[in-house]
Amino acid sequence: MTKVKVGINGYGTIGKRAAFAIQHMDDMEVVGVTKTRPSYEARLAMKEGLPLYAASKENVADFEKEDIKVAGTFEDLLPKCDIIVDTTPGGVGEKYKPVYEKAGVRAIFQGGESHGVAGISFNAMANYHEAWGAQFVRVVSCNTTGLVRTLYPIDRVFGIDKCFAALVRRGADPGDKKGFALNAIEPSLKLPTHHGTDVQTIMPWLNIRTMAVVTPTTMMHVHCVTCELKKKPTENEVLSVWDSVPRIRFVSGKHGIKSSAQVMELARDLGRPRGDFMEIIIWQDGVKVEGHTLYYYQAIHQESDIVPEIVDCIRSMMKLEEDPMRSIRKTDRAMGIGK
Amino acid sequence: MTKVKVGINGYGTIGKRAAFAIQHMDDMEVVGVTKTRPSYEARLAMKEGLPLYAASKENVADFEKEDIKVAGTFEDLLPKCDIIVDTTPGGVGEKYKPVYEKAGVRAIFQGGESHGVAGISFNAMANYHEAWGAQFVRVVSCNTTGLVRTLYPIDRVFGIDKCFAALVRRGADPGDKKGFALNAIEPSLKLPTHHGTDVQTIMPWLNIRTMAVVTPTTMMHVHCVTCELKKKPTENEVLSVWDSVPRIRFVSGKHGIKSSAQVMELARDLGRPRGDFMEIIIWQDGVKVEGHTLYYYQAIHQESDIVPEIVDCIRSMMKLEEDPMRSIRKTDRAMGIGK
Amino acid sequence: MTKVKVGINGYGTIGKRAAFAIQHMDDMEVVGVTKTRPSYEARLAMKEGLPLYAASKENVADFEKEDIKVAGTFEDLLPKCDIIVDTTPGGVGEKYKPVYEKAGVRAIFQGGESHGVAGISFNAMANYHEAWGAQFVRVVSCNTTGLVRTLYPIDRVFGIDKCFAALVRRGADPGDKKGFALNAIEPSLKLPTHHGTDVQTIMPWLNIRTMAVVTPTTMMHVHCVTCELKKKPTENEVLSVWDSVPRIRFVSGKHGIKSSAQVMELARDLGRPRGDFMEIIIWQDGVKVEGHTLYYYQAIHQESDIVPEIVDCIRSMMKLEEDPMRSIRKTDRAMGIGK
Amino acid sequence: MTKVKVGINGYGTIGKRAAFAIQHMDDMEVVGVTKTRPSYEARLAMKEGLPLYAASKENVADFEKEDIKVAGTFEDLLPKCDIIVDTTPGGVGEKYKPVYEKAGVRAIFQGGESHGVAGISFNAMANYHEAWGAQFVRVVSCNTTGLVRTLYPIDRVFGIDKCFAALVRRGADPGDKKGFALNAIEPSLKLPTHHGTDVQTIMPWLNIRTMAVVTPTTMMHVHCVTCELKKKPTENEVLSVWDSVPRIRFVSGKHGIKSSAQVMELARDLGRPRGDFMEIIIWQDGVKVEGHTLYYYQAIHQESDIVPEIVDCIRSMMKLEEDPMRSIRKTDRAMGIGK
Repeated sequence: MTKVKVGINGYGTIGKRAAFAIQHMDDMEVVGVTKTRPSYEARLAMKEGLPLYAASKENVADFEKEDIKVAGTFEDLLPKCDIIVDTTPGGVGEKYKPVYEKAGVRAIFQGGESHGVAGISFNAMANYHEAWGAQFVRVVSCNTTGLVRTLYPIDRVFGIDKCFAALVRRGADPGDKKGFALNAIEPSLKLPTHHGTDVQTIMPWLNIRTMAVVTPTTMMHVHCVTCELKKKPTENEVLSVWDSVPRIRFVSGKHGIKSSAQVMELARDLGRPRGDFMEIIIWQDGVKVEGHTLYYYQAIHQESDIVPEIVDCIRSMMKLEEDPMRSIRKTDRAMGIGK
Repeated sequence: MTKVKVGINGYGTIGKRAAFAIQHMDDMEVVGVTKTRPSYEARLAMKEGLPLYAASKENVADFEKEDIKVAGTFEDLLPKCDIIVDTTPGGVGEKYKPVYEKAGVRAIFQGGESHGVAGISFNAMANYHEAWGAQFVRVVSCNTTGLVRTLYPIDRVFGIDKCFAALVRRGADPGDKKGFALNAIEPSLKLPTHHGTDVQTIMPWLNIRTMAVVTPTTMMHVHCVTCELKKKPTENEVLSVWDSVPRIRFVSGKHGIKSSAQVMELARDLGRPRGDFMEIIIWQDGVKVEGHTLYYYQAIHQESDIVPEIVDCIRSMMKLEEDPMRSIRKTDRAMGIGK
Repeated sequence: MTKVKVGINGYGTIGKRAAFAIQHMDDMEVVGVTKTRPSYEARLAMKEGLPLYAASKENVADFEKEDIKVAGTFEDLLPKCDIIVDTTPGGVGEKYKPVYEKAGVRAIFQGGESHGVAGISFNAMANYHEAWGAQFVRVVSCNTTGLVRTLYPIDRVFGIDKCFAALVRRGADPGDKKGFALNAIEPSLKLPTHHGTDVQTIMPWLNIRTMAVVTPTTMMHVHCVTCELKKKPTENEVLSVWDSVPRIRFVSGKHGIKSSAQVMELARDLGRPRGDFMEIIIWQDGVKVEGHTLYYYQAIHQESDIVPEIVDCIRSMMKLEEDPMRSIRKTDRAMGIGK
Repeated sequence: MTKVKVGINGYGTIGKRAAFAIQHMDDMEVVGVTKTRPSYEARLAMKEGLPLYAASKENVADFEKEDIKVAGTFEDLLPKCDIIVDTTPGGVGEKYKPVYEKAGVRAIFQGGESHGVAGISFNAMANYHEAWGAQFVRVVSCNTTGLVRTLYPIDRVFGIDKCFAALVRRGADPGDKKGFALNAIEPSLKLPTHHGTDVQTIMPWLNIRTMAVVTPTTMMHVHCVTCELKKKPTENEVLSVWDSVPRIRFVSGKHGIKSSAQVMELARDLGRPRGDFMEIIIWQDGVKVEGHTLYYYQAIHQESDIVPEIVDCIRSMMKLEEDPMRSIRKTDRAMGIGK
């Protein structure tokens, strides 16, 4: 079988994980990754055997100065690809769109771009087919992916009348250079925050409102979610629904996993690559139903939860697999996150 | 005028602030404070000229070893007091209740005790008269005080149909010895959290649900609040209501006050004693109304917001002032927090 | 007595504290402060009754937009001043130097400028007279001030053969906007760090080497200092020396003050304005002598320790007081930090 | 070849890593691990296929309640082992010593125990043969291991006259339950700290003094080290020495690895199990020589650096391999950390 040829534009936090995942699939392969500067991630790409391309001609000299040999520039990579996974920083993808368009190459954008850049926003469980054969698709952000993964099945089974979520965000990624205000909680004053609207790019019928604060932590976002349901389920029925869908995992405070940091510790103990958790984590003993109201807490690994979505999105756009569940299972099995 | 004689049982985070406030009033005075150990706070009490009593006979020797002369023990203090402000650690107040009862002395308990210990829970704006002449009253916790201060006037003017609040809590106080999980967000798994029920001890008719997480910060709790209102106010109408009641203060992200830490910095700049903020802080540019739904963020200074409530509670229990607003204004003017 | 007229160029972290201190002296006064933007600190200056000047003509409109009336621009302030305290951000002072020179006004620069900008670096205890009548003087940084305050008297009495200090720095100030890497310890790789050289601008004979790391905290720098002494003192003799000089204060882990945060809590409890500690803090039970080697830990309040030095520096430059100890005592008494 | 049978007493932070490492060797195997409570680590042991034993009979019921089947108790495990790796909490190992003695089983203690418990303290490079055939050996703590790894070769080649190290410690491990003071730097007041003395249990001739502070971080300790050398090396000569010995790895601030958090990120990117770094990390561009003085910064992964030392220690005690370098290389190759 010919593998789909994927280029990664921007080998950073998401780019390196997407490349790792794609290399573990049997129906796609990474034909090159781009990097602006000769950072240690450029060396990592080489160590991983991934052809490295400078983002532009101007950057080539920088790489040469550091004795890093590039295979060419982004322009050289482009014609080699069936599809580009654009993991450039938020807002940069939009600038590349005309380039992809001109080259006639498909592209997946990230949640840092607005919905309009691609016109289609993607979550494998919720709307796999919307991406079918499309040229441009956006895989939604880590937080939106988290909300859709847990809300979509609840809405399907019990009906959500109204939903409110408060997002308690991490301030920076563990290895982040940019930092964040120390010892401070900072509310996102523009209300309601964009997360609710973003969920609606996939579930436009959903009545959802979000607020958000940022905290000086690096390990996962934690969501406080409350839903008014149309039906009155028991807690066990709710847990059953989540148990039956992929990419959701339960943890339990009673077993000693009380915080986002302890969730991440579990990922390390499970031998997950990079200590990542691509599933959404729900505290089993933090799920409560009162009448029609459902409360739950979920933790989102901001660095990795969208990675399997990117893989499935490639399959849908490249028409590799028609059945969403078969794509999801294939991805998850290869990444070791299947149920 | 004879001043009401107040004893502070437990000269710690709240106790030292309550003592400071009471000393600034003209109708009450601190006749003694108790301390278990000869810590630096014991020395502080002496420096402040407050008669220091050992919590019990067994502790006296510890104080003597450190050359701290105590005026006696708790038992010696008790008959000197008209009222005790019990600022012992959560759950300890309950054990003291029979002692206060036997001595026939009035007592104010803290939010760390359950409502049942006193039978009356107090907030100056909302139910000043419930404490009138009572022997035992509980001043609710910092978070509950914060919620009542902002929800009560909104409910009075616009009617609250349903309210949801996510509490993003600080992990420890700035000088706290006990510490907290580092780099972690920890949800309060018992749902809904006790904060909603606690608000109902003062506003029993209020339909309120709360969730909470703890974060590794020391500066203020931040609440994400959303209310379904009976009327449809504008944002300006909402702000006007809060502007017309005491102990609420606005800040603005546009003027550079974006986080809880920056709010606390403002308190330092305003010359507030200990850098405390006894008012509830609302981000003016973080208030949003959509239809019947009101969203807002508020910050709660966990170390001090209940202190003026304690003063007012003394006035109500000791029948010093019949008009709640006059008591509140008197307290606030003396503390420099009047509007 | 005519008071010396002081202008504060840059009303930020240090500028607002310098203004506060100067206003508490009887031989000097603040005739104006400058601000680039209409931030909340601009409003604070107005509240404090300090004439506010826009940094330049271009900024005036910004202030007007926010309804803040300025008294003019920096150029208007300059001729009103005998001396300028330049508390602009590091490196900016250098650019103002020719302006001060042209206007023939004296100026005090901060530790963020290099020694060469002023040619004289200042510490009140160590070299008060070097600033006598000078046009330009630099008050050294918070860390350098801290090292000089404790090393200078030790060197005078016991002789320091060699000194090594590791500086464990806070990442940002409590209300800082810029933030810092979370959950990370970051070494200052350029070695030895500039702090040692900086101490030598005041004590050129001192054999000192420094290393530094930054940590994600906002409360004080902590120094680990070790000195090889010429004499062999006892620990009590060392403590006596520090006890006999101003602006050094002891705390004790045994009395419950174990960390930088608890030191800051003490400042709040002592009622210090803004909760500042202008003294250098030494842990009494963290001082150790072994043979000729002295070890000690000290904590530096980065926001405020240089403030009294600025006041003394004004007195020396303006020839207000010839005796350094009389200037120091005058300053300290007015600020409530005298021994 | 018969494999050496190893029991792990205490399957926690170090225990689980030691078990993982031993399972990757061809000359030893884990025959069982003990656990006090049915925590998620107990489930992890089962998942890893490691026979699980309750620490004592009293604990068995707790495991049964959680549906975890244990293979027996610690007493049942003991006779099955040639050697026990005691990874119980600090101070607990001492209590087990008479039990090991009575059972005639060898045991390795951790750095949490005092030197006297085993009488021999171990580092593979420095004193492999001292453990040869011994019944009890202590593998020194993570910090001491770090200091010995970098100081020992420097001392061998250039001679260390005097050494001073300031240890900037992390407050807790990432998944730690116990937490730590937030936003605080806390000095270790007992001076000099035990780390220097502890290094001398392996290098008794070394003139070393240490100080230490704790910071609210979870990622690595960072050491500021300064040595007075007998010879005057160049920086390159120093780097060459470290490059020639195992278990030291260079990083470079210039390539974007500036902080302890970014070092840990590199470990994740390198695909290291659990994201661990068993090598000591030296910042190549943070090494400086001035005359006879050498300065350097090193980072210590507190959770894992002693793990390969434990493996080598088993080999020496069980007389499996006479040549230390061959044992070290064998361990490192199996763990993927060879140079």
